[in-house]
Amino acid sequence: MTSASIIGGSGYGGGELLRLLLDHPNVEVKQVTSRSRMGEYVYQTHPNLRKRTQLKFSDPSQLEPVDILFLAQPHGQAQHNIEEYAKLGTKIIDLAADFRLRDEAFYEKWYGEKHAAPAWLSKFVYGLPELHRAEMATASHISGVGCNATASNLALLPLVKADLIDLNSSIIIELKVGSSEGGAEGNSASHHPERASVIRTFSSFGHRHTAEVIQEMGVTNVSLTMTAVDLVRGVLATAHAKVKQGVTTKDLWKAYRVAANENPFIRIVKEQRGIYRVPEPKILAGSNYADLGFELDESNGHIVSMCAIDNLMKGASGSAVQCMNLMMGWDETLGLEFPGLHPI
Amino acid sequence: MTSASIIGGSGYGGGELLRLLLDHPNVEVKQVTSRSRMGEYVYQTHPNLRKRTQLKFSDPSQLEPVDILFLAQPHGQAQHNIEEYAKLGTKIIDLAADFRLRDEAFYEKWYGEKHAAPAWLSKFVYGLPELHRAEMATASHISGVGCNATASNLALLPLVKADLIDLNSSIIIELKVGSSEGGAEGNSASHHPERASVIRTFSSFGHRHTAEVIQEMGVTNVSLTMTAVDLVRGVLATAHAKVKQGVTTKDLWKAYRVAANENPFIRIVKEQRGIYRVPEPKILAGSNYADLGFELDESNGHIVSMCAIDNLMKGASGSAVQCMNLMMGWDETLGLEFPGLHPI
Amino acid sequence: MTSASIIGGSGYGGGELLRLLLDHPNVEVKQVTSRSRMGEYVYQTHPNLRKRTQLKFSDPSQLEPVDILFLAQPHGQAQHNIEEYAKLGTKIIDLAADFRLRDEAFYEKWYGEKHAAPAWLSKFVYGLPELHRAEMATASHISGVGCNATASNLALLPLVKADLIDLNSSIIIELKVGSSEGGAEGNSASHHPERASVIRTFSSFGHRHTAEVIQEMGVTNVSLTMTAVDLVRGVLATAHAKVKQGVTTKDLWKAYRVAANENPFIRIVKEQRGIYRVPEPKILAGSNYADLGFELDESNGHIVSMCAIDNLMKGASGSAVQCMNLMMGWDETLGLEFPGLHPI
Amino acid sequence: MTSASIIGGSGYGGGELLRLLLDHPNVEVKQVTSRSRMGEYVYQTHPNLRKRTQLKFSDPSQLEPVDILFLAQPHGQAQHNIEEYAKLGTKIIDLAADFRLRDEAFYEKWYGEKHAAPAWLSKFVYGLPELHRAEMATASHISGVGCNATASNLALLPLVKADLIDLNSSIIIELKVGSSEGGAEGNSASHHPERASVIRTFSSFGHRHTAEVIQEMGVTNVSLTMTAVDLVRGVLATAHAKVKQGVTTKDLWKAYRVAANENPFIRIVKEQRGIYRVPEPKILAGSNYADLGFELDESNGHIVSMCAIDNLMKGASGSAVQCMNLMMGWDETLGLEFPGLHPI
Repeated sequence: MTSASIIGGSGYGGGELLRLLLDHPNVEVKQVTSRSRMGEYVYQTHPNLRKRTQLKFSDPSQLEPVDILFLAQPHGQAQHNIEEYAKLGTKIIDLAADFRLRDEAFYEKWYGEKHAAPAWLSKFVYGLPELHRAEMATASHISGVGCNATASNLALLPLVKADLIDLNSSIIIELKVGSSEGGAEGNSASHHPERASVIRTFSSFGHRHTAEVIQEMGVTNVSLTMTAVDLVRGVLATAHAKVKQGVTTKDLWKAYRVAANENPFIRIVKEQRGIYRVPEPKILAGSNYADLGFELDESNGHIVSMCAIDNLMKGASGSAVQCMNLMMGWDETLGLEFPGLHPI
Repeated sequence: MTSASIIGGSGYGGGELLRLLLDHPNVEVKQVTSRSRMGEYVYQTHPNLRKRTQLKFSDPSQLEPVDILFLAQPHGQAQHNIEEYAKLGTKIIDLAADFRLRDEAFYEKWYGEKHAAPAWLSKFVYGLPELHRAEMATASHISGVGCNATASNLALLPLVKADLIDLNSSIIIELKVGSSEGGAEGNSASHHPERASVIRTFSSFGHRHTAEVIQEMGVTNVSLTMTAVDLVRGVLATAHAKVKQGVTTKDLWKAYRVAANENPFIRIVKEQRGIYRVPEPKILAGSNYADLGFELDESNGHIVSMCAIDNLMKGASGSAVQCMNLMMGWDETLGLEFPGLHPI
Repeated sequence: MTSASIIGGSGYGGGELLRLLLDHPNVEVKQVTSRSRMGEYVYQTHPNLRKRTQLKFSDPSQLEPVDILFLAQPHGQAQHNIEEYAKLGTKIIDLAADFRLRDEAFYEKWYGEKHAAPAWLSKFVYGLPELHRAEMATASHISGVGCNATASNLALLPLVKADLIDLNSSIIIELKVGSSEGGAEGNSASHHPERASVIRTFSSFGHRHTAEVIQEMGVTNVSLTMTAVDLVRGVLATAHAKVKQGVTTKDLWKAYRVAANENPFIRIVKEQRGIYRVPEPKILAGSNYADLGFELDESNGHIVSMCAIDNLMKGASGSAVQCMNLMMGWDETLGLEFPGLHPI
Repeated sequence: MTSASIIGGSGYGGGELLRLLLDHPNVEVKQVTSRSRMGEYVYQTHPNLRKRTQLKFSDPSQLEPVDILFLAQPHGQAQHNIEEYAKLGTKIIDLAADFRLRDEAFYEKWYGEKHAAPAWLSKFVYGLPELHRAEMATASHISGVGCNATASNLALLPLVKADLIDLNSSIIIELKVGSSEGGAEGNSASHHPERASVIRTFSSFGHRHTAEVIQEMGVTNVSLTMTAVDLVRGVLATAHAKVKQGVTTKDLWKAYRVAANENPFIRIVKEQRGIYRVPEPKILAGSNYADLGFELDESNGHIVSMCAIDNLMKGASGSAVQCMNLMMGWDETLGLEFPGLHPI
């Protein structure tokens, strides 16, 4: 058994990761830390784990070395402690934003502050297996992914890989997101009477996840708009772009099929009938799938490309486990078999 | 025009009251206080009032005398300041729990503390017009009502008035409630990812609103169980009791019809067809109606009596305005004409 | 009192209209028809109207002449009966799509069929008061508006009126909509277990409401994408466009302020703090307001302009009543004073 | 591998069962029938199964013999075909209500019609493992369970087993349920605008599931009231009863602990702190757990006993798989390990 510990296990990402690792056939969870809940049973915070584990939250200062160390802290902490963490885990997978960007100046531009450990930036592989599978096989350090960035990147992936978009035109990505994106700490806007039934745009452009789309897709003229809707888990990214002259629906089908064939967690959803004809996050809760769909207006080359994911799974902890599998040379889908529920 | 001010206008009850008073044909709102938001436009807190009023929250210490003073503070404050408030308003309507119970010892039993102004308890009329209409016509001080107590009292009212229940048997009242009952201040349990889709029982018995049912209905063997569900506004009280020997469905119809005839805001909902066959809070958002329904198991005398209300209207601010209308000798329904929306 | 009847009163638009007319101070509702519910009380279908009216649904063939005839039928019926309806009402306000487009060929292009009464197209004024207020004062026939078209048109209105957009760039409008848009007749996709918690794109482009945006805004390079979310009432339109060279945030403020000053139901929502900083349909349920907001990326001229409305009010029946007020020379806001609820 | 087929796989129970069997390590699914969707991929109906199976719905008349035959049809069909089904599967597990009741007259009383195959009633074991584990080990035919009956029975189980309730007093069980209980076929009341945000009582007493509580718990003075709330999956049963003279909270703890120790899917939820202090269906979606909790009013012996389940899992398909495991001599929890999600 491979030993693993989680630093920062009381948040939603950490809790989801813990659930996945507890059921993973090759992993033994050693410790899960939480400064504020030290000594409490983890199931008091993550009630789905009751009767599944008697683990208690550990003191972060009492961590012991493990094979794989997962970092699930709020953004901005890991970069201050990475040297120390490197002594505890030969292999590290971070879920936060600390090591997602490769370039120090680019990080500073998007995060508005200097990075605390810039030398480490180049040591991390960006944590989206669909983009960096080969590198992960030999990596020791893998970063997290932004959930909105992941939905956006996967919506663009078939188009960019097959070089089908006109990059002179701007790419508008509209994201509709669930409330768990905001994390486990509430605020006045997440109070149920204020948050229920919303269609609330919280970022018109300039969201930090945009940086991950620019870096990973190699596009520059791209904008992300984020709107909160009444749902707990899930993101739908809808990318609007122009295809290159002459690109047809048939070309697009081919590009999307390649993506689905090469990636076990990518599915194409594009049906003529039934209720679920396009990608929809609703049915992905708990699943690691990314559902892709598209529609091309052949009259003007306007493509609408959609990607639906569970922000806590494919957009965070699920991808982290997938990265672990690849880093360890295990089957990529191990411990990620839950297909999601219908109805839900 | 009758002048009115509201002490404590940043909460949900205060905001709803302000909305009603701003549109009330006989009332001019002078001041609305909020210690934490002094100087801010009220519409920044209550966004439905944008373009409807340029009022700003006042400093509570700068209040000027008015014809009617409304108290919409959290429980426990009004009783400490009532002497001072009495100088500002000849007529006072409190929305909080401070003056709902008539008996000092009874208050202490249910609230676990001595009342700060026991001499004032007898000066207040309990604020449910359906029970105290006549007294209100000559009253100067009217208390608030508990929203759960109101739904429970109105579910029992036709039965108690017509003396149809066997009071030796226990009365079980199950309440299902929306999230606005918890007030405008959030907590960890009201965080949307934790509060959405709940069926969460937060009081099995012993809730303070029980005291208002005991006092107003004259029943003793009664228990209220409260369960939060996914809804912002609304309460459904379902009262289970035994009817007296020989009571029939026809007797019940008669009793409920009397209640509906005597009270402009009581409606009977008991249809054989359609979607809305029983009382349902969903369609009452913003309305002052209390919808009543019942079903009698003639084989064993088990009656199920239901009452649906909007907890912020009939369960709080709507009843307060109704009380004002009665106290001032105006039409009872003035300013309370909004019928609610369908669908919603 | 002005007499009015509604043809097709069992749907959501008809029900909302009926609610508004019943409370309108200048109007007396004579008849409401429904072929399938003839003889039933209207409150059995629209339960919010219980105890408000004893009206029953009439046989459409038994209609008597009135001052104003409202048509609230499904699309495609009014154009076949308009000659007959013209005999029943000197003034007609249609809520459906039959008479929204001015041009016969344009209608045929977007609706895929010939119009049954093309001569009538030019007799109708398009039913958005913010665009046709002056014409309405002398009009006898006013069309309905598409709810998505209305949110889109109002999102663009300040920009188009002040000539601030670069019309060579494409305009992408993303709409997020509630379930009442689908009308009162359910289908497999509106079944609650399938419809709850959705983020479901049902039209990537080519929706018929696009035609109303092209016609009314004079833009051609425009695309509407529609996504259903978990909400009953409400639409948010988010328009992405490029402003002309040199346009600043200050210019935009000016244009939006003009729109808000000229139109009683337009509000600007653009706050630095609080929960409701941008337009949101949630708080507009039952209200006729259209809330506008915007954000300009000055680095590249990308403007995000938002409009939130209640699709059944400003997007349908509320605008229809507003049109009636203008056509009759009454105060534009008469009977439309309900400000919406907070929280809801 | 044990072969299994499902008759009636297009409904929610059938779909959930299919998901579980596809991932069950000891089972190979041979055929899934649907008369209306013959030839279609099952993932078109159950979109969570896309990329998981290429199975298509079979013609019911083309069924081949298997080791275990699951019946997931609407109530009333299996009893007419049971002889035929018995030839196809030596072992049969029915999910419907056809073979739940042991007594022919009792069936007729509650279902209002004669049973079509009364001789078969005694051949079926009632499908709740917590009550019939031993019998299942040797059974060939196991019935389904009503989801509301299951929540009710498990709420009562510790009390009845330990003989703690006063059976002379009536037992009132209030159930709050999600929309998936109504099945996959929609109706006017399940249309999202009408079904969202409801607190809608659809059965005051007399629901058929009551019969299963009477039969299995040996109680007679029991009543079930069912109220639909805004949730897709989940039931909370809240049982109100009187404990016998002298029973204390400590006695209750003991009885509930016994239940949790004897049954792998029963958990006690009774915390002093945190958000999830009592049983709540929200976190059980997809899980087979039944969470139990209780509170005793020691002043009067009123006990409130709660049970939360996922109606499609422990209340239907999950219990069916658990029954299969027991019938086959496998580990009771095989294929049922999914713990549920938090948050959701």
